[in-house]
Amino acid sequence: MTQTVGAAAGDCEGVFDANVSFIAVDWGSTTRRVYSLGRDGRLVDARQAPLGVAGLAPGQARAEVAALRARLGKRPMLLAGMIGSDRGIGGVGYIACPAGLDDITAGLVEIDPYGAIVPGLAECEGLHRDVMRGEEVIVLGAVVDGSVPPDAMACQPGTHNKWVTIERGCVTGIRTLMTGEIFGLVRDHGLIAPLMTTPPRDDGAFREGVEAGLDGRGAFAALFSARARALLDPRLAETTSSYVSGLLIGDDVRVGLAGHSGPVHVLGSGELAGLYRSAIDAAGYRSIEVDSTTAFLAGARAIALRLGWLQ
Amino acid sequence: MTQTVGAAAGDCEGVFDANVSFIAVDWGSTTRRVYSLGRDGRLVDARQAPLGVAGLAPGQARAEVAALRARLGKRPMLLAGMIGSDRGIGGVGYIACPAGLDDITAGLVEIDPYGAIVPGLAECEGLHRDVMRGEEVIVLGAVVDGSVPPDAMACQPGTHNKWVTIERGCVTGIRTLMTGEIFGLVRDHGLIAPLMTTPPRDDGAFREGVEAGLDGRGAFAALFSARARALLDPRLAETTSSYVSGLLIGDDVRVGLAGHSGPVHVLGSGELAGLYRSAIDAAGYRSIEVDSTTAFLAGARAIALRLGWLQ
Repeated sequence: MTQTVGAAAGDCEGVFDANVSFIAVDWGSTTRRVYSLGRDGRLVDARQAPLGVAGLAPGQARAEVAALRARLGKRPMLLAGMIGSDRGIGGVGYIACPAGLDDITAGLVEIDPYGAIVPGLAECEGLHRDVMRGEEVIVLGAVVDGSVPPDAMACQPGTHNKWVTIERGCVTGIRTLMTGEIFGLVRDHGLIAPLMTTPPRDDGAFREGVEAGLDGRGAFAALFSARARALLDPRLAETTSSYVSGLLIGDDVRVGLAGHSGPVHVLGSGELAGLYRSAIDAAGYRSIEVDSTTAFLAGARAIALRLGWLQ
Repeated sequence: MTQTVGAAAGDCEGVFDANVSFIAVDWGSTTRRVYSLGRDGRLVDARQAPLGVAGLAPGQARAEVAALRARLGKRPMLLAGMIGSDRGIGGVGYIACPAGLDDITAGLVEIDPYGAIVPGLAECEGLHRDVMRGEEVIVLGAVVDGSVPPDAMACQPGTHNKWVTIERGCVTGIRTLMTGEIFGLVRDHGLIAPLMTTPPRDDGAFREGVEAGLDGRGAFAALFSARARALLDPRLAETTSSYVSGLLIGDDVRVGLAGHSGPVHVLGSGELAGLYRSAIDAAGYRSIEVDSTTAFLAGARAIALRLGWLQ
């Protein structure tokens, strides 16, 4: 296996290999990850490039897919994530929850005889509207892989953090919180931006913020309290970033896990996932880390099996 | 009475009047309002200028106060609002809740033998920290004026909306929500900014948003649902501004009025106050509009009486 990161131009060179049986692409807003899997389902090659959908010009998505095809040959190819949105190829809708791997496979949208795009999932319950694209392959892959049980709660930290309810191996509930986006907006453009000059860390101020965020006064009141905290005690001003991060993630955990009991499977690693795990633990739950790349590949393999791409 | 709006350079010309007994200034982040009151407490003159504290250069606040003095003579002058903050004159702290007019008067900070700045109020309860500057004169003025009862809930719509609990004529609770600031950040810089090109209105989409915001899934989840709503039904995209405004104000009302019963006194008028009143009514409360300028003057008069500036 070859792991290459950030080689935009040549991110698919050398992937052509007679042992490759299909290609799975996790194509998000900021990053494209291309995986080549062998006949036995094993990973042969992984490439990552900053070719996310958010950075593509109109029409560029189709050209990028064609370029992938030209480099990788007429192998079966499964595309998941924001590539299915209107900013990508477009025309790929959402299927309704509850949805499992069979539903996703039935809802695939063919782009040519060898390739298909995974549909998104939508949850509508009363006034609630929520959607996901790409995360469903990771979540359902983790279930089929055995790393997440068929009845579970999953957390997928990101700019738009997702809480996913899984029942009998299907996604039954989606709750997306714009926590990361709001943190970035407040840090970059908000009135308290001058106080937020350092990256957040899992320190005492973060945990103090988590505790305040968990107490349920609401995220916007919590945000103002970060300002009041620094005004009333200027020595605390320098820890505002960590405190605000704690407040927002604490509120996120409170909203996302309302009514839940049992462990929480955090699909992801890195700093942000660490902050979420810290807040989940502080809320009295047990957090379990699950590798999201492994889970994505398990989900892609499960779909490929259903399509007859693997024996 | 003369009402002049936006005359920055000449906002105090002509105010000098032998009948004027004292000057009350409501000096906020974006606007300075200078009121001249007669010996009987009646309003003689009102001037408004875009000389808010947020736009002043370091040190400029003292020079602006001196310029006011030079124009208005050595009359007693009461300054309230952000002019007391570090971005204004500075050095004016916060007094702790519960606080009434006697406490505020006792906490005044003299700037010269004829003038004083009103302290801010701070509420600390458990992990909660909150502050106000200027709003306390309006709230307590409305109480002394009889337009708000001595036990009441007040709402002060603005960029940072405030919910103020009043008991026995004192401010006992402050809850500030950054709702307006977040609305502006999302509209100007957020991922859904392209959908938010029209000003929010009290229309069907607003009321739909209010209903969703009141249902308690949390403000950040509500924000993402605005995106999901437009993705799942593109015909709804053009009403996103109103919907988001409704979501955020609905969530604000839910958090601010949690546990409250009885009417809500909305100190303010104009479009934003109208949106808040609509959401408060939708939540099952009765909203009562109170004129905030009248209330500010009543509060300033009450402090002036305590200082012997009025008979």
